[in-house]
Amino acid sequence: MTKFEVTILGCGSAMPTTLHNPPSQLIDLHEKLFMIDCGEGTQLQMRKYKSRMSKLHSLFISHLHGDHIFGLPGLLSTLSMLGRTNELNLYAHREIDFLLDPLLGYLGKYISFRINLIPLNPDGDELLFENRSMKVTSFPLKHRIATNGFLFEEKETPRHIIREMIDFYRIPLRQISDIKEGADYITSDGTVIRNEILTLPGNPAKRYAYCSDTAYAPGIIPYIEGVDLLYHEATFAESELVRAGETYHSTARQAAEIARDAGVKKLVIGHFSSRYNELETLLKEAVAVFPDTELADEGKVLPL
Amino acid sequence: MTKFEVTILGCGSAMPTTLHNPPSQLIDLHEKLFMIDCGEGTQLQMRKYKSRMSKLHSLFISHLHGDHIFGLPGLLSTLSMLGRTNELNLYAHREIDFLLDPLLGYLGKYISFRINLIPLNPDGDELLFENRSMKVTSFPLKHRIATNGFLFEEKETPRHIIREMIDFYRIPLRQISDIKEGADYITSDGTVIRNEILTLPGNPAKRYAYCSDTAYAPGIIPYIEGVDLLYHEATFAESELVRAGETYHSTARQAAEIARDAGVKKLVIGHFSSRYNELETLLKEAVAVFPDTELADEGKVLPL
Repeated sequence: MTKFEVTILGCGSAMPTTLHNPPSQLIDLHEKLFMIDCGEGTQLQMRKYKSRMSKLHSLFISHLHGDHIFGLPGLLSTLSMLGRTNELNLYAHREIDFLLDPLLGYLGKYISFRINLIPLNPDGDELLFENRSMKVTSFPLKHRIATNGFLFEEKETPRHIIREMIDFYRIPLRQISDIKEGADYITSDGTVIRNEILTLPGNPAKRYAYCSDTAYAPGIIPYIEGVDLLYHEATFAESELVRAGETYHSTARQAAEIARDAGVKKLVIGHFSSRYNELETLLKEAVAVFPDTELADEGKVLPL
Repeated sequence: MTKFEVTILGCGSAMPTTLHNPPSQLIDLHEKLFMIDCGEGTQLQMRKYKSRMSKLHSLFISHLHGDHIFGLPGLLSTLSMLGRTNELNLYAHREIDFLLDPLLGYLGKYISFRINLIPLNPDGDELLFENRSMKVTSFPLKHRIATNGFLFEEKETPRHIIREMIDFYRIPLRQISDIKEGADYITSDGTVIRNEILTLPGNPAKRYAYCSDTAYAPGIIPYIEGVDLLYHEATFAESELVRAGETYHSTARQAAEIARDAGVKKLVIGHFSSRYNELETLLKEAVAVFPDTELADEGKVLPL
């Protein structure tokens, strides 16, 4: 079974605390490592949790607030010092140029690899990356500036052949791939052997969605409907509902309502305001609406 | 007695490790907080060691390698979120514009205070800041790019009046300040009472020097001669002497030779290469030349 897991590197918000680091997480999906957001200290967190920098395939930046990007200069420099030569795809709002151009201009002579900036579409969903076994799409969130959520999904694998049945019916090799894709088999005497007899279902295609930062926005539900794991920001407790609205953030209860209404399997909440020394209130408020909720925490690994 | 102490926030070098943070330190001098260098994660270290951000008076950047500056964007943003209105003096090589201009241009609307960039002189020593009780000067180091060391020094205080002697000789109030500055007192019958009888010496003027990053450079000795505490980089052990020379860094022994030849009172070494999991070798090599040496470490407070 191929790996699909999320590691939280930081689940704080704009103001750093001793409890939480600024936002960043890693998606380990079929031997590729993807990063979402890169707050200050992200590369230090990767060291702490022994993440393999050499496996880093591409970076996805939800939006250009400092707490989501100030770790980029250090991370890119370190990748370069480690001798990276593989290109790095950086998916972000096109204005990230403001940070990257001067950095690459000044430090350019030290950067050992090419960075491809792929601008995100702030207005609709868009396929960002695809290969045989997975795809990544972005979709718009609702924040003070252009902000994107991300959906990481496995593709369904072909059905698994039942070796014994293939042997029993003496099915020719050239028909195997059709059968994996769902075809029936017709014997020389015209008997139809239904595919369900010859195969077992393929591996389930798991899906992970990242929604941060965002106000309560039911409009995102079509993009994340039924995902196996939803990371949704929950900056505030319900007592700060007004402030959440003003700052285009969500309360824990609102995150849970999105999870419930989108019919997701599991919710993890993060992007906690620096005002909370303990998070039990946020968790309780979310669980009251959507029981299968847990708190993000630095170093936590969430398998799909 | 007014406070003068150094807090190490980071004493690693370019490549971050789980043992050491990138370079930064705080000088707490007569109720003002000065920062030297600001590697990634510096603001997080300030939180960890409960440094008072509101006391931060000015920043001194030795040179523009990433490990000395990548914490600036986050620190400046956080100071702004905390509502700072006092101007902040930033002493750095003038090319720091490459980092600051786009940042302030893009984030400018959120920055609540004025940043004064004061370009450092890379070729000679220069007075940077002075008030009644202290001064800060910069001087050139020897590195791959323009790099400055910094000298923080107290001014000598006036001599302390011995209350009982003033009363005994019935010295008029208007003569006290002259006596504090060293004047003798002449009684009405013409007797000269020498100043040493009326006063005790003022507080000693302590001096702290920061030298990182730098190759072994005896040329810096005149700037740091006799300081009470010298922070000198010691990136490498003696086994890496050739590499130290090539990269314009110092070995621990070379740092100790500078300390010995400059007649300083105490040496603390830092800017350790990421290759060292333990630092006993570096300490031994330095102590062999200059016994009063200690290792820097995150959170260590060095009183003067």
